[in-house]
Amino acid sequence: MSLVIRFGVAMASSLLGKFDHLITRKGYKNRSEAIRDLVRSNLVEEEWKIGNKETVGTITIVYSHHFRELTDKLTGLQHQNHAEIISCMHVHLDRHNCLEVLAVKGRADKIKKIADTLIATKGVKHGKLVMTTTGESL
Amino acid sequence: MSLVIRFGVAMASSLLGKFDHLITRKGYKNRSEAIRDLVRSNLVEEEWKIGNKETVGTITIVYSHHFRELTDKLTGLQHQNHAEIISCMHVHLDRHNCLEVLAVKGRADKIKKIADTLIATKGVKHGKLVMTTTGESL
Amino acid sequence: MSLVIRFGVAMASSLLGKFDHLITRKGYKNRSEAIRDLVRSNLVEEEWKIGNKETVGTITIVYSHHFRELTDKLTGLQHQNHAEIISCMHVHLDRHNCLEVLAVKGRADKIKKIADTLIATKGVKHGKLVMTTTGESL
Amino acid sequence: MSLVIRFGVAMASSLLGKFDHLITRKGYKNRSEAIRDLVRSNLVEEEWKIGNKETVGTITIVYSHHFRELTDKLTGLQHQNHAEIISCMHVHLDRHNCLEVLAVKGRADKIKKIADTLIATKGVKHGKLVMTTTGESL
Repeated sequence: MSLVIRFGVAMASSLLGKFDHLITRKGYKNRSEAIRDLVRSNLVEEEWKIGNKETVGTITIVYSHHFRELTDKLTGLQHQNHAEIISCMHVHLDRHNCLEVLAVKGRADKIKKIADTLIATKGVKHGKLVMTTTGESL
Repeated sequence: MSLVIRFGVAMASSLLGKFDHLITRKGYKNRSEAIRDLVRSNLVEEEWKIGNKETVGTITIVYSHHFRELTDKLTGLQHQNHAEIISCMHVHLDRHNCLEVLAVKGRADKIKKIADTLIATKGVKHGKLVMTTTGESL
Repeated sequence: MSLVIRFGVAMASSLLGKFDHLITRKGYKNRSEAIRDLVRSNLVEEEWKIGNKETVGTITIVYSHHFRELTDKLTGLQHQNHAEIISCMHVHLDRHNCLEVLAVKGRADKIKKIADTLIATKGVKHGKLVMTTTGESL
Repeated sequence: MSLVIRFGVAMASSLLGKFDHLITRKGYKNRSEAIRDLVRSNLVEEEWKIGNKETVGTITIVYSHHFRELTDKLTGLQHQNHAEIISCMHVHLDRHNCLEVLAVKGRADKIKKIADTLIATKGVKHGKLVMTTTGESL
């Protein structure tokens, strides 16, 4: 745990009023927490731009398990990248469609590559990579 | 399964050359699949803009479990929304940090609201909502 | 001009150190200004989600003026929306390609509609809408 | 002008129906043009990720001209980057607020740097970079 520092921010009351209104609606209990969240989001974005840092992501894909050999292919791809893919959650959306979410840890560029490959697989209907963080020193 | 239709697309060879190069790098096996993915992404984006359709998302959060009562609070929030939250995966990132991914199904605006509330919770360091799809008719 | 209020923000020194590093690199002279910018961006984003507020945008398009009747068509479309389109800047990128930027003021949903129509016009190679603000009370 | 190639795309009729519906609403006259736009957007995005290619952008900023010495500072910054900044459009939004749009041509990373510096300037309320293209071979 690192030391907590308190610093002052100057803001026009009209701007502050609008911000307070927004964060209340989003469920924030106080202004400091909302500002820390903006700061952290900003830092996480930058971390991913650099590319060679170890970081954490989640990959969400939706596909139909009826698609010929798709389940096998996706399992194969995931095992080829077992060093980065920590864990996987599978949800049965309906009789046909599957939602799969993978938790991934590794270099930003490597994680992007894995996401690209999974999303490009024939039969995967939609996919998205979330670029998040190891949480260290944030 | 719906009928497959084949239609023609006209494209300047220089543009097509660049596209073929990009999709090969991303791991696509053929052009049709890459174009279907662009089309589907475009449709999923629109679905989420409308807001009142039933759809599927995943919410990724990173937090420290040392943070006072945070685990209880997050569990409480999730149970309040048990109708939408289908399933949850928890990953122990290191001694302090947790990654949690929730699979959520419901109206787009309701899912956004749940994501806002979880991300706004004090102690949650980073959070992101993936707006995906039920997969129906895609 | 509205009253300036000064309030305190608490932040772990490790997080603050990373933030200071980032904003120095981006050219910020002080922390307050960087935080005000994060807050304003956040508010502008929300303003555009609501849709029915009067706001300001810019529409950037790139096209080839050789394309049959495109210049006439684009001029026509802009005049049909003269109530919203304030001004237009045209740049000759090379012998063939034009960059055009339109400053637009009106309801968020109306501005989006104008952008969609211009970008969808055959011969327009690329287009983007910037959703900014009237600047009032920000 | 490069050769036009015609190729076939296979798509489930349900997916195609949804896509046709969306593009009609956006104002597209035919499917080929909508698909070319998706392809071009995808390519432009990649071009900007690479960073060292010459490309084109527009920078939109909103500021109050009452802010002490801001107009001078912004003019100074723009002249320091006159090699990249081609042209500038200024709109008087109201008694206080200005909208300025800059057309910029140069290396992607250099353009990003200029945008960062302008947006970070004290008194600039909101700013956005549009990453577009020279239009060559698109």
